[in-house]
Amino acid sequence: MIGRLNHVAIAVSDMEAAVAVYRDTLGADVSEKVAQPDHGVSTVFINLPNTKIELLEPLGENSPILKFLEKNPSGGIHHVCYEVEDILAARDKLLAQGARVIGDGEPKIGAHGKPVLFLHPKDFLGTLTELEQA
Amino acid sequence: MIGRLNHVAIAVSDMEAAVAVYRDTLGADVSEKVAQPDHGVSTVFINLPNTKIELLEPLGENSPILKFLEKNPSGGIHHVCYEVEDILAARDKLLAQGARVIGDGEPKIGAHGKPVLFLHPKDFLGTLTELEQA
Repeated sequence: MIGRLNHVAIAVSDMEAAVAVYRDTLGADVSEKVAQPDHGVSTVFINLPNTKIELLEPLGENSPILKFLEKNPSGGIHHVCYEVEDILAARDKLLAQGARVIGDGEPKIGAHGKPVLFLHPKDFLGTLTELEQA
Repeated sequence: MIGRLNHVAIAVSDMEAAVAVYRDTLGADVSEKVAQPDHGVSTVFINLPNTKIELLEPLGENSPILKFLEKNPSGGIHHVCYEVEDILAARDKLLAQGARVIGDGEPKIGAHGKPVLFLHPKDFLGTLTELEQA
């Protein structure tokens, strides 16, 4: 069912410092910072030859990554995102197997403009797992 | 400097349960389990179209992932691994910039039979970061 690894997301408290790590220290290709007010984060993408790293910085007082950064003040890997061909079919298959989808179960439009769902870390090896329609 | 994302490693306490999540629930292509006594882990690779997920289970009493699993009993994302063309040149560039390499600074032979180094999470956004010679 799952296809490509679309991205690995790393939450950071200081995007400028994070960009310096990937652009200057690790010598990677780094996108511009984009505010995603609907998601409560700003994003920068590290473009690798085969996938992307998504750097997430909190935006606003209700950012969904604030709690994670309180627990992990230096930042840390926040989630992985796999592509699926049909997100509704994937959701229904997962629910039928007893896996939990976060929220109301309806896909939202993610940072790439495509439908996404988040799966419960307790059902997926302690790993917050996003599915994105390819 | 960094190239492809070689893999994302997820530490798990029960490999059979972890394999069931990826093979049965997520429908991915899963390799056989291999003991890596030199590394204190057993590994299973999830083969995605563009990269791999490396599942790590403790092997032996001195496994380097035991502490991580004490803190994260459900498992969790343990590290990311980027490919570099020349691991010694990469190491020297990183050291010159003040980044810390874990251990004695000499590459070890990793689970794929290639030289690897681990970089200190505090210098890399709270993320344990492995470099592997491509």
